[in-house]
Amino acid sequence: MLNPCDPAFVARLEALLPPGRIIAPEPRHLEEPRGRWQGRAGAVARPETTAEVAALLRTCFEAGVGVVPWGGGTGLVGGQVMTGGPAPLVLSLERMTRLRGAFAQENALVVEAGMILAEVQAEAARIGRLFPLTLASQGSCRIGGNLATNAGGVHVLRYGNTRELCLGLEAVLPDGTLFNGLARLRKDNAGYDLRDLLIGSEGTLGVITAASLRLFPVPAAEVVALLAVPSPAAALTLLSLAQERLAGMVSAFELIGRTGFDFLAETLPAVRPPFDPVPDWMVLVELGLPQGLEPQAAMAGLYEAAAGRGLVTDGVIAGSVAQGRALWQLRELIPEGNRRIGAVSSHDISLPLSAIPGFIAAAPGAIREFGAFRVNCFGHLGDGNLHWNVFPLPGHGRGEHEAVRERVKDAVHDLVHSLGGSVAAEHGVGRLKRGDLARYGDPGMLAAMRAIKAALDPRGIMNPGAVLD
Amino acid sequence: MLNPCDPAFVARLEALLPPGRIIAPEPRHLEEPRGRWQGRAGAVARPETTAEVAALLRTCFEAGVGVVPWGGGTGLVGGQVMTGGPAPLVLSLERMTRLRGAFAQENALVVEAGMILAEVQAEAARIGRLFPLTLASQGSCRIGGNLATNAGGVHVLRYGNTRELCLGLEAVLPDGTLFNGLARLRKDNAGYDLRDLLIGSEGTLGVITAASLRLFPVPAAEVVALLAVPSPAAALTLLSLAQERLAGMVSAFELIGRTGFDFLAETLPAVRPPFDPVPDWMVLVELGLPQGLEPQAAMAGLYEAAAGRGLVTDGVIAGSVAQGRALWQLRELIPEGNRRIGAVSSHDISLPLSAIPGFIAAAPGAIREFGAFRVNCFGHLGDGNLHWNVFPLPGHGRGEHEAVRERVKDAVHDLVHSLGGSVAAEHGVGRLKRGDLARYGDPGMLAAMRAIKAALDPRGIMNPGAVLD
Repeated sequence: MLNPCDPAFVARLEALLPPGRIIAPEPRHLEEPRGRWQGRAGAVARPETTAEVAALLRTCFEAGVGVVPWGGGTGLVGGQVMTGGPAPLVLSLERMTRLRGAFAQENALVVEAGMILAEVQAEAARIGRLFPLTLASQGSCRIGGNLATNAGGVHVLRYGNTRELCLGLEAVLPDGTLFNGLARLRKDNAGYDLRDLLIGSEGTLGVITAASLRLFPVPAAEVVALLAVPSPAAALTLLSLAQERLAGMVSAFELIGRTGFDFLAETLPAVRPPFDPVPDWMVLVELGLPQGLEPQAAMAGLYEAAAGRGLVTDGVIAGSVAQGRALWQLRELIPEGNRRIGAVSSHDISLPLSAIPGFIAAAPGAIREFGAFRVNCFGHLGDGNLHWNVFPLPGHGRGEHEAVRERVKDAVHDLVHSLGGSVAAEHGVGRLKRGDLARYGDPGMLAAMRAIKAALDPRGIMNPGAVLD
Repeated sequence: MLNPCDPAFVARLEALLPPGRIIAPEPRHLEEPRGRWQGRAGAVARPETTAEVAALLRTCFEAGVGVVPWGGGTGLVGGQVMTGGPAPLVLSLERMTRLRGAFAQENALVVEAGMILAEVQAEAARIGRLFPLTLASQGSCRIGGNLATNAGGVHVLRYGNTRELCLGLEAVLPDGTLFNGLARLRKDNAGYDLRDLLIGSEGTLGVITAASLRLFPVPAAEVVALLAVPSPAAALTLLSLAQERLAGMVSAFELIGRTGFDFLAETLPAVRPPFDPVPDWMVLVELGLPQGLEPQAAMAGLYEAAAGRGLVTDGVIAGSVAQGRALWQLRELIPEGNRRIGAVSSHDISLPLSAIPGFIAAAPGAIREFGAFRVNCFGHLGDGNLHWNVFPLPGHGRGEHEAVRERVKDAVHDLVHSLGGSVAAEHGVGRLKRGDLARYGDPGMLAAMRAIKAALDPRGIMNPGAVLD
């Protein structure tokens, strides 16, 4: 049983650290973007060094006080807000934002966990390199949170999830032990892979304090196109064609369903898609190319080959960087349109690529018994990661469907699971999907997870209630 | 304390499984390629299904009998041979070699752990895809062993280590629990990353029985060159230049020191390098290109740009697939030359790229006090992974240096560690480097490793004595 972060404990923490490190919680520390949960906390700690993080955890471990690690607060599954139980300490990394080193020749950057993602991207650009993690929240999320949740985004297809963008970690384990694994090595088989165990564990096994990140060469040229496709199946065949022609230089391959643009027309009428009428299915394709390939010609060559096979029916190839940005902006506004309409239930799912057309065809039928809905299906098709979100019909509100929300979610998740997919693709488990993990997770995996959690955090202080019960 | 796999226990196992599964150890099950250790075993089990593996582990776990998982027997650090303690059961995956599924559109292949690596490559090729893991032992090593050791090889620079080539695993945990994580998903954040914990754990946390592997598009064109460079530092600058021009399409970047070719001239005089005199340092570069780039022209363009900056002084660009193979063969024969000379001490190390020139300059001085030696330095420069191997002078034998072998190794490893490198880069820890791991490993990492090992394998039956004491 945990103890609360009460005034006496707060006083202990204040005595431990330099002045100003412990503050009362501010609203931002207790909110989350979807407004579903209201967090609670006895205090917020803002350590400035790894040693201070270690001192905090050691003290919380001894006292049995829960700790909720906090990055940018942008998580969508409630991993950053503890809503019940004894009030925890929120441990914010917001003051650990230093660049520890930049190594262009090594394609590596060493940063503290509190650095904002956009700053990480900028530091990489400063040395002529690319840090490819690209998220809607990049102006406010922090790299430590990206690592803790193994964030995805639009460039996973080419460059991998956050896990694959990390060479090494520095972290503090639940009892205050420092793990120094901040190497800048591409090959290192000295010991178990604690790095990847901590990445994606959502703050339940320790606090990531710094990371050595993998950078990439900046492609010599980029080109973006928005292509109309006859079906999701055709989109997948187009993806194979693009990868075969271009040896993996497809940097992004995003599916856009017509509903996404319908929502923009309803809620942001100034935004104009380049098609009229808007086709049922489109893909946004980004290529990152080497020297010697003319970007418009490479995309046009792909378009022609695809058109000859009936895989595309129309398209716009950006002729400039600004036109490419404008096409990306259409894609990036889709979540804003969703917010303005107001979803009944949102699903961050992944599927084996070959199961996607069948899922898209079958899923509306799986929720039909719960009412009449509109569906916006979009996302990172190249990764098999769809956002399949359910909305009320025009003139109706999400509140009307509150009673069936859980059943809609379960019906979608049951279908995903039956097709070999995951119901927690890129946003993590947090507190929102803890029940789903218990329901769909492999029993052997869950048993091993519990054993590891008990071994590293025997008092259960780290992010209590997230991921596991 | 473990119990031996004695005749009574062997009889129990025989009663458990269909006939023919349990055999007496054959010499191949007890040997290892460097001839340093002689393994022992009470019996060899050759299960044909995952359920049989589970039954075996459950029985060994209950009885406290050690289990040594065995793939192709090609490991170079003694991970596959238990030399002391109560005789273990060797669990060979050699009969679990089935292809479970091939998915070209998904770029995925699902195979059992006993499939020979060359077969995995062939299955990928059969569906028009590339499985890029490429090792000297690929004709006899098995994918389960590659995963257990997180094997490296010559294409890590572009495609990653074995860990990054794996989408999901099926494994049996030490107590016989099945872990079914055989998904074909590119994004899946539902739970802790057991996959990557098992990968590289060298059979100490369970037995990998099957894997879902990541495939890649086959580059439209490839080209190979052997380039003379003035120094290792120039080679690294050349690598940066190549990556910047070619957006990461450098598939291999291997360093070759003159000593490697000197050894071939001594031991395999029919083999002729394309340079006379042989330069001190060379790199073998492989590019894998998209449609639209002429391969010889792309390599020639790189050569000219590099020559203009003084980064290359001479070179041979293969004009055909056969010529490219011939250049690769020179690289691949270097370990054979090493074997024929006979090393005093071999080191599989990795370093931050920027530390490599300093290491190469300083390392001979670090071993000078132990005698007069020749050094063959070669390896996967793009990954910071060098094989820095120490040999006797001409006319002398390795036996003369037996007394200083450990001290030579320690001096090299001390230097690597002081530069932020790893002394177990791509071959793993096994039994050879257990002492090095204890000596150089981060104390926090070692504490967490021991806690995880105790949690998942409380009786310590899995590969006793490998990796950890």
